Amino acid sequence: MKLTFLGTGAGMPSKERNVSAIALSLLQESNSVWLFDCGEGTQHQILHTSIKPRKVNKIFITHLHGDHIFGLPGFLSSRSFQDGDKLTIYGPKGIKQYVEASLAISETHLSYPLHIVELFEGKILETKQFNVYCKKLDHGIPSYGFRIEEKDRPGKLQVDKLKALGISPGPIYKEIIESETYTLPNGTIIERKQVLGPTRPGRIVSILGDTIAHEQYHTFIKNSDVLVHEATFSKDHEDLAKKYHHSTTKQAAQLAKLGTVKKLILTHISSRYQEQDYALLLDEAKQIFKNTVLATDFYEEEIIRRDK
Amino acid sequence: MKLTFLGTGAGMPSKERNVSAIALSLLQESNSVWLFDCGEGTQHQILHTSIKPRKVNKIFITHLHGDHIFGLPGFLSSRSFQDGDKLTIYGPKGIKQYVEASLAISETHLSYPLHIVELFEGKILETKQFNVYCKKLDHGIPSYGFRIEEKDRPGKLQVDKLKALGISPGPIYKEIIESETYTLPNGTIIERKQVLGPTRPGRIVSILGDTIAHEQYHTFIKNSDVLVHEATFSKDHEDLAKKYHHSTTKQAAQLAKLGTVKKLILTHISSRYQEQDYALLLDEAKQIFKNTVLATDFYEEEIIRRDK
Repeated sequence: MKLTFLGTGAGMPSKERNVSAIALSLLQESNSVWLFDCGEGTQHQILHTSIKPRKVNKIFITHLHGDHIFGLPGFLSSRSFQDGDKLTIYGPKGIKQYVEASLAISETHLSYPLHIVELFEGKILETKQFNVYCKKLDHGIPSYGFRIEEKDRPGKLQVDKLKALGISPGPIYKEIIESETYTLPNGTIIERKQVLGPTRPGRIVSILGDTIAHEQYHTFIKNSDVLVHEATFSKDHEDLAKKYHHSTTKQAAQLAKLGTVKKLILTHISSRYQEQDYALLLDEAKQIFKNTVLATDFYEEEIIRRDK
Repeated sequence: MKLTFLGTGAGMPSKERNVSAIALSLLQESNSVWLFDCGEGTQHQILHTSIKPRKVNKIFITHLHGDHIFGLPGFLSSRSFQDGDKLTIYGPKGIKQYVEASLAISETHLSYPLHIVELFEGKILETKQFNVYCKKLDHGIPSYGFRIEEKDRPGKLQVDKLKALGISPGPIYKEIIESETYTLPNGTIIERKQVLGPTRPGRIVSILGDTIAHEQYHTFIKNSDVLVHEATFSKDHEDLAKKYHHSTTKQAAQLAKLGTVKKLILTHISSRYQEQDYALLLDEAKQIFKNTVLATDFYEEEIIRRDK
């Protein structure tokens, strides 16, 4: 699991930051990439990464503001030239109308099936390895957060215990892992749980759309390995944050702390802030929640398994 | 009058060429900039030029394919943050629906009046200095070409002739220019046309959308100072050009020759061609029409007055 920040700016593109898009690479897990938001120029940003558009098989849209969706028709269209298979878009009510109108008027004919799901609160998706939950946030227009939970995996085979039972390494280990119980030639029955270590917890990534960082969201993001949260404004602009339904650095950090997440990544930084301001913005958050990063375009975060 | 090529690729963006957009700067003439097509990422390209979005007061859309329009909603939206005044879009039937749906669904509220005109053949616009004519082309879907004609200007005052009449330089020169006839203190009547040089012809720029380069278009582009024409394919791919309703380098050059234009600028180059191929593509056109340029992103062409 690796996050790649394709656009970390707010409202409109600048030379430093493109508008919103984040890729969650699940290449090792499921040979796919999930995209969160798709502001204008997302496909251009992707050209400068190793991400292959045909691997992107799910796109999650947090809300319908232009800086989060205007890259969608172009991305979908270009993906047609790259042998992409079925793609599903999850987005707020209205996303279907936007995509279908854009494709129809431009006479864009996709080479792959496109499925569009309008969002609701609760579990919106279950795959072999993941559950994805969705929560409504507070941004003036409907805006959503996503909690991507990797399913727990069984514990590792405890080789020491097997050896103590007189079982030497070999193909038999695989057989023991694959069934609840295993009967040895001498009649001894081994229960799998006896020889497995503790269940290995899956990783959790929470990606919230534009929102006021309300305290009550802490249960939704609880214990995430990574929380991606907007920080449109510095802590000195709580007034603007409130007025435009956004968050400050400090507010995002307070939420991260309440949610006892492992790491906070701030994004959606207003273009009023320049490179020389980033250290200050980051410091504002770190005062509250130490393990914080302020994302820049093309910033990558590898999410390591907890048992490593 | 200066052309800036903001995107010179075909179909989808590449690292080398963005999708279609051309700016015609008329800053000296009318303190404005006109945009021709607005593919995704046009506002990003503009960030790397001296063009101010608020100065763009007219946008002409040749046709509705995504690589020519998907940058429009984002451009319009960002322009709202820059104190832009009224803007008019001229585009094929459907452009109004596309723009209005995109802005409505994304809840984008523009800070300036937006006027949308659906195209027709003939004179679509007359300003103090320019006439703009529109012609339907051949691209499978409705696609248009634009002929921008600067109005002729009166000739320059012939100082030699005035001096020969015994009139010394001074404020009187301005008075003579401003009226049909002027009566000197000694009773002599001077007709303005006696002391003006020949009428100075306006400049002509023709910008055609995606099309098969039919010979009969030569009357529409006649005597242009600059013809901007697509050349999606090399002359070896007449079959593909025909199939996809595009032109080859050679076909564009033949049209330029027939139209006795002064200069041909080729754009909309397929991404199948790389930097090492450009010399060959250009040469194919030059074999037919010598004064040809193959545009690259950010290529600029100053259109000099004919009397200079």
